[in-house]
Amino acid sequence: MALLLHSTPERGAVWGRIFADAGEGFIADEAGVTDPALVTHLACWTPPADLARYPNLRTVICVGAGTDHFPPLPPGVALSRTLAPGIEAMVRDWVVMAVLALHRDLPAYLEDAARGAWQPRPARLARSRRVGIMGMGRIGRLAAESLGALGFSVAGYSRSGAPVEGVAVFGADRLDDFLAGADILVCLLPLTDRTRRMMNDAFLARLPAGAGLVQAGRGAQLDMDALRRALDSGRLSAAMLDVTDPEPLPADHWAWTDPRVLITPHVAAHTDAAEGARHALAVIRADRDGQPVPGLVDRSRGY
Amino acid sequence: MALLLHSTPERGAVWGRIFADAGEGFIADEAGVTDPALVTHLACWTPPADLARYPNLRTVICVGAGTDHFPPLPPGVALSRTLAPGIEAMVRDWVVMAVLALHRDLPAYLEDAARGAWQPRPARLARSRRVGIMGMGRIGRLAAESLGALGFSVAGYSRSGAPVEGVAVFGADRLDDFLAGADILVCLLPLTDRTRRMMNDAFLARLPAGAGLVQAGRGAQLDMDALRRALDSGRLSAAMLDVTDPEPLPADHWAWTDPRVLITPHVAAHTDAAEGARHALAVIRADRDGQPVPGLVDRSRGY
Repeated sequence: MALLLHSTPERGAVWGRIFADAGEGFIADEAGVTDPALVTHLACWTPPADLARYPNLRTVICVGAGTDHFPPLPPGVALSRTLAPGIEAMVRDWVVMAVLALHRDLPAYLEDAARGAWQPRPARLARSRRVGIMGMGRIGRLAAESLGALGFSVAGYSRSGAPVEGVAVFGADRLDDFLAGADILVCLLPLTDRTRRMMNDAFLARLPAGAGLVQAGRGAQLDMDALRRALDSGRLSAAMLDVTDPEPLPADHWAWTDPRVLITPHVAAHTDAAEGARHALAVIRADRDGQPVPGLVDRSRGY
Repeated sequence: MALLLHSTPERGAVWGRIFADAGEGFIADEAGVTDPALVTHLACWTPPADLARYPNLRTVICVGAGTDHFPPLPPGVALSRTLAPGIEAMVRDWVVMAVLALHRDLPAYLEDAARGAWQPRPARLARSRRVGIMGMGRIGRLAAESLGALGFSVAGYSRSGAPVEGVAVFGADRLDDFLAGADILVCLLPLTDRTRRMMNDAFLARLPAGAGLVQAGRGAQLDMDALRRALDSGRLSAAMLDVTDPEPLPADHWAWTDPRVLITPHVAAHTDAAEGARHALAVIRADRDGQPVPGLVDRSRGY
């Protein structure tokens, strides 16, 4: 049994030490594979082209939290996405920053600053603002908890509407009610057939006038032209995006310099190398012991 | 007994309703004063010029949290600063936003965005970052709690070094140690003779290289030229300021367009009119009952 890492030399060095300490087989890159039959696990962000080369491959481990970019895997090969407290906390931190930035009119103040204008606007209490979080998985629940602790009135949306302690969760049958109550909408959904281009004109039109949009899901969920129309009509007052369509966003894209839009280049989370290696070790041990694989992705569901 | 409000007609309307409901005497502006001897309390941000006009004045209530701008009051007249959970929560929200913005390299990403550059930088875990909060009053403790909940390693500084649960607090005799451990420094100090121009070249030189500065105290505490030199030398990587010297910052000031500096125009808090009125009622009742006045300012100490 050995894990093959398909990543950078820097990550390879960190993983190599952790696997050596754990006494597990580790190959730092494809060039180091002498016998493909030894490879039982593969960890990567984007898999190498020829997975059929590894006859004993059992599980592919995505080093990030989202796996929508993965091609179909050979029959019998499972997919695990990295569950790491660090990823979850990092996305939560980015979301809290973005919600506060929209809540406190940072886009407008930055626009004022560019022309040297000292122009105070009334500040509002967090408790007067309703934040709607789409996606009530581990990160969504963490964000709900942190935003609730700052005083925001927080609601959640998930396809199932399954209850979450301390948060009013709306299911797919109540999406309209959820959107109507979201002064600041946060998207943390995975990319699936249901969520692709979900945020279009009709969707954004259901938000309260002047709403803010925080996008930390996947770029393809938001129609960027619809975003622009919603900003122009006043339906949205501002947006903060960590993911865009396309990615990277071309240098001449309108959104870069629109003062109503703040963009970071898909950096809400970054898997800590050591955390990723620890997740991979947990997968290997679960496979060996016949236990459920941590982070197992149901590819029909998309997460 | 009556309270005279020296503020805007909008605030006067809100206060008037609350004082009427409470059955307390209220005069909405100086033009409405028929008998100055009736005025026992005055609420304002900046006091009117001639306070000697009111022979029975007992307490002046500042409608904000900071009173450094107040002139000396006539003998026997006390000064109360408004204690309002809303002010404290608003400043906390602004500080959390600013710390996260520096932690997650927002100034650099905004600079990239201006030229359409998609350029991810490594993200770091909050727990790897040390935040040092100067000022361990009500707002400082609230900020420490919120930042600690996000995982930051938080230390506090106060003149006395008085202990605060869950936070390592450094007193004035250990300022150097405190600064050396502040990857992101937050200033929430009141303006006093001791804190005026406190943040100068020598002070900033004690921070770790590449530190971030969050300024939500008072503008006169930070030497803006020293700030610029610290940014140029790399001692500071970025700063987010809600207060500046001078205020308003002139339109042609270098800081407005320096990509390493984010500025908001003294808007971290805004006293909710109803909260301010409730504080004033509490002061009036304490004065009547011979109880300690809430928010009483020790003018020799400055807060």
